[in-house]
Amino acid sequence: MCCVVGDGEAETGPLATSWHSNKFVNPVTDGAVLPILHLNGYKIANPAVLARIGDAELTKLLEGYGHKVYWVSGDDPIAMHQQMSTVLEKALVEIASIQRHARSAGQGTPTRPAWPMIVLRSPKGWTGPKSVDGLAAEGTWRSHQVPLAEVRSNPEHLAALESWLRSYRPEELFDARGALRAELAQLAPKGERRMSANSHANGGLLLEPLALPDFREHAVEVSDPASSFSEATKVLGAYLRDVISNNPRNFRLFGPDETVSNRLQAVFDVTDRQWDASRIETDEHLAPAGRVIEMLSEHQCEGWLEGYLLTGRHGLFNCYEAFVHLVDSMFNQHAKWLKTTGSDVSWRQPIASLNYLLTSHVWRQDHNGFSHQDPGFIDHVVNKKAQVVRVYLPPDANCLLSVMDHCLRSRNYVNVVVAGKQPALNYLAIDDAILHCTRGLGIWEWASNDGGDPDVVLACCGDVPTLEALAAADIMRRELPDVKVRFVNVIDLMRLEPSDEHPHGLSDAELDAIFTVDRPIIFAFHGYPWLVHRLMYRRNCHANLHVRGYKEEGTTTTPFDMVMLNDLDRFHLVMDVIDRAPGLGSRAAELRQRMFDERLRIRAYTRAEGEDPPAIRDWTWSWRK
Amino acid sequence: MCCVVGDGEAETGPLATSWHSNKFVNPVTDGAVLPILHLNGYKIANPAVLARIGDAELTKLLEGYGHKVYWVSGDDPIAMHQQMSTVLEKALVEIASIQRHARSAGQGTPTRPAWPMIVLRSPKGWTGPKSVDGLAAEGTWRSHQVPLAEVRSNPEHLAALESWLRSYRPEELFDARGALRAELAQLAPKGERRMSANSHANGGLLLEPLALPDFREHAVEVSDPASSFSEATKVLGAYLRDVISNNPRNFRLFGPDETVSNRLQAVFDVTDRQWDASRIETDEHLAPAGRVIEMLSEHQCEGWLEGYLLTGRHGLFNCYEAFVHLVDSMFNQHAKWLKTTGSDVSWRQPIASLNYLLTSHVWRQDHNGFSHQDPGFIDHVVNKKAQVVRVYLPPDANCLLSVMDHCLRSRNYVNVVVAGKQPALNYLAIDDAILHCTRGLGIWEWASNDGGDPDVVLACCGDVPTLEALAAADIMRRELPDVKVRFVNVIDLMRLEPSDEHPHGLSDAELDAIFTVDRPIIFAFHGYPWLVHRLMYRRNCHANLHVRGYKEEGTTTTPFDMVMLNDLDRFHLVMDVIDRAPGLGSRAAELRQRMFDERLRIRAYTRAEGEDPPAIRDWTWSWRK
Repeated sequence: MCCVVGDGEAETGPLATSWHSNKFVNPVTDGAVLPILHLNGYKIANPAVLARIGDAELTKLLEGYGHKVYWVSGDDPIAMHQQMSTVLEKALVEIASIQRHARSAGQGTPTRPAWPMIVLRSPKGWTGPKSVDGLAAEGTWRSHQVPLAEVRSNPEHLAALESWLRSYRPEELFDARGALRAELAQLAPKGERRMSANSHANGGLLLEPLALPDFREHAVEVSDPASSFSEATKVLGAYLRDVISNNPRNFRLFGPDETVSNRLQAVFDVTDRQWDASRIETDEHLAPAGRVIEMLSEHQCEGWLEGYLLTGRHGLFNCYEAFVHLVDSMFNQHAKWLKTTGSDVSWRQPIASLNYLLTSHVWRQDHNGFSHQDPGFIDHVVNKKAQVVRVYLPPDANCLLSVMDHCLRSRNYVNVVVAGKQPALNYLAIDDAILHCTRGLGIWEWASNDGGDPDVVLACCGDVPTLEALAAADIMRRELPDVKVRFVNVIDLMRLEPSDEHPHGLSDAELDAIFTVDRPIIFAFHGYPWLVHRLMYRRNCHANLHVRGYKEEGTTTTPFDMVMLNDLDRFHLVMDVIDRAPGLGSRAAELRQRMFDERLRIRAYTRAEGEDPPAIRDWTWSWRK
Repeated sequence: MCCVVGDGEAETGPLATSWHSNKFVNPVTDGAVLPILHLNGYKIANPAVLARIGDAELTKLLEGYGHKVYWVSGDDPIAMHQQMSTVLEKALVEIASIQRHARSAGQGTPTRPAWPMIVLRSPKGWTGPKSVDGLAAEGTWRSHQVPLAEVRSNPEHLAALESWLRSYRPEELFDARGALRAELAQLAPKGERRMSANSHANGGLLLEPLALPDFREHAVEVSDPASSFSEATKVLGAYLRDVISNNPRNFRLFGPDETVSNRLQAVFDVTDRQWDASRIETDEHLAPAGRVIEMLSEHQCEGWLEGYLLTGRHGLFNCYEAFVHLVDSMFNQHAKWLKTTGSDVSWRQPIASLNYLLTSHVWRQDHNGFSHQDPGFIDHVVNKKAQVVRVYLPPDANCLLSVMDHCLRSRNYVNVVVAGKQPALNYLAIDDAILHCTRGLGIWEWASNDGGDPDVVLACCGDVPTLEALAAADIMRRELPDVKVRFVNVIDLMRLEPSDEHPHGLSDAELDAIFTVDRPIIFAFHGYPWLVHRLMYRRNCHANLHVRGYKEEGTTTTPFDMVMLNDLDRFHLVMDVIDRAPGLGSRAAELRQRMFDERLRIRAYTRAEGEDPPAIRDWTWSWRK
């Protein structure tokens, strides 16, 4: 595959590091890329940096990136065509030779090849107007975009445009009626060689569904809800291990050096990190070929995955939640591409969805602190067209399994899955989890005591908010047993949007039934609280909705102190209920005061001990179904 | 200034291109940076790429980046200290010699120097535990973060921790009572050499206010509202030219090669783009020293500006609106830093605000199309702490001048200013503009006919929405003169937030008076419409609020077709009024139908002619004050 790199875009950060991709390409098992750096010298209004550092320095740079450099340089079209053809042939022969050599030597080939690349130096605006208004155009930045801007009002510009277009000798290309001459039309590629019909440009043609393992076999046993603990991503890791085993050629896991930190390490039972730079004896799980690709560049992970999907394969990008913002702009372009090709380009076949697993999330940055706390990628994602974006916040390990199975089967979406890696309560046995994920949200009757007529709705979305909301329900049931609490958990965030805004949106009738239209709703949310308002402002219950979430308060502290800093903790949720449920204020004033005091007591404990009290850390749900 | 670069972070895109910063450093007028690439070989769980490409290739790469490379390599602490000291001395002498030579030869020095840099190769986890649980720790990724994880439960870990800490020989450092020995305490820097008191680390100490020109002198004449046209950023460019003239040493303008495209070209009357790579005769406005810094990397612009502000200077980053998402993550960290240092670190002096000018915005991507349309950076920004973020959408050139003057005087904020570059109507004479900007929002009485008791409020925010809302008001006044329309324009978006959420938030009483609590509000907004709902959901008027904005529909098309695609056009706004103002529905059905037909007629015209009808393009407000 050739990849033409403009010398302007070569200045961008993501492109600058992408040259190092060649340390992750294996000549035995992979294809090859022939980069062509197009050194036309200028951007919109400036020279390009790489065009102004001298040939010697540029050559060192490109050799330092690991390439063997061929130059094609000049401004005579005929001579350049000949030169380009010769060099291209040479580079392709060299690539074939590298591959042949590596493949005959066997996969353990010890030396990374210096892959060929081409520097193509040609004038910017080549063969366009030489000069405009007496200033050089060809060969300068002035030829960028529209070199002749005033063809309507300036006769000289019009004449220059005519002479430019006549330089293509239209009389040789078109017949008297203006039709393309038949002998030229015949040169156009036919059948599968047409760009739209070519699987290189329409990767969906090559897409084969993944052979997915039965995720239920990876489920954790849940006999009673919220009484045992799992690390959700670790459970998922074992499932992903089997996904990789079953699909050794068309699934890859990408991440910026965090696959183990994100507790997906089970994948290394069956595969390695692909690494074609040097290896030493003490390295672990590095190999010339493997299904995990890690480089400390979220841009690189995103770019690799997009390319992998566009060529008809499947993948998953695992990332710390806060740092996925690095690829906001790349996500934008992929989402726009999906929207446009999905709805407007009928010949393009569906591709696998772009799947994000965001973990090491905002609520559990015990050691990293404030810089690592940002749940806002989902806010960014939901701004894109509803038909292509999906956001899931599974509350526990079994729900995560069910959600990921669904995402890996889907096509033409961006799926964002947010899940924790720390030990956390299991809520649902696998069959319940599947039902809950399929519904996308639901009432947890075992956590409710409303008998169909709640005084208050306690809603939650995300693993940590679910824990706090459930612990709040526990306190309510002990302290105010006559207050009827309905407990609602949301996995599929898009269920909250009106049904005419998002295909997953619940009808008003369904949503009204679950959330009520006249009872206070206390909603404990994983992310920024206003995102829930942004999704639900047209809902009938909106005036009764009170959301807690991350409000940009944090530091390196204990998990419970983090939820307290943002008023998302169980005690504050109980206070929120007391403040809003009709008739509770005065009657529950003493309880409210105890909740307030409890926060202070625990804050003091965390400061003295550096950790949460065992009663918080080890809390479980003690009511039976 | 030394800059230590970890070999892990060196894999990130923004860092990979930042090596090219040395093409923008002038040895005559600027300081110097001594990069130290710390090659400790590992990241969290992987080797670092640069540590595994061999010394020869790495040297080529770094020389290709334009550096002269010195190596410091080893694992014996004493020998390494000596070696580092020698090499550091050599590098500093060399930097001084480069500067002396350049400064004696005069500013026009023709050759860019090969600045020295150091590669420091030392073991990861150096001097920590050699091995843990029988596996090598020092010199491998296993020493990342917490090498001994089980000191509480594993006696061997505890013993290893004790022996590690004893290796620092605490008996030589502390006295019998555990206090630091006086002769060692004396070694700590004193006075201004303390890190917190040092102006290198506390740039606010060096901050001098800008000598700002009188922006009123750059105002455009506006005798009647909405009857003449200006290019807002071009008007701003002349003001920025004077800012640069007045402040030749502590103000810089950064941008990714778009300063001219964004129509700020007047700055080149008095300065140049700083460029220390090669220059050729045909270059324009490139010079070894200049106040404009352009490289095609938004990351680089953001990083340069942050560094410039942190060292006590001032600046402005001008960027295409859609592509500023590239720096979402960098903005996050700067905003978090401002929040933390502003509120929790009393010794840190305020620094100049980080100012963004976002132009070439979503509504005028006539040639670039869908990929260039994203107004969502402000959605991202308002998720950060209210005390540090400000968002302004001046509707015209005079308002832009007033807003920018305010931003350049402010401290410790992030200011986002969104303004168009295309010819657009002037609404306010400069004195009115100043009043309007100071209020942040207001009723435009000349565009209203409500006499204090509106039937409907027509609100707008942003230049294109203001045009469409005003044209809608024009239609309303002609066609339904008895319907009383109040026209409200919003510049300071944060005025819409409740006053207990943002310092700029209007009180409910003020906001209720302007927007009413019981009349329909049709709000034409520059960005995603739900952002207005997210800001106003707690306002008393929220149930009556109907917002139009960008809903991710676009392509390469005419300006008016763009607003029609998103239902933000004047005709649709009139339809929205008819649909919502009490009693209008049936009475105005014929007008509604004409509005519908008008949209179809104009859509057809744009398809036939490739441009908007003159009546749309040249529309002005014909009612006199």
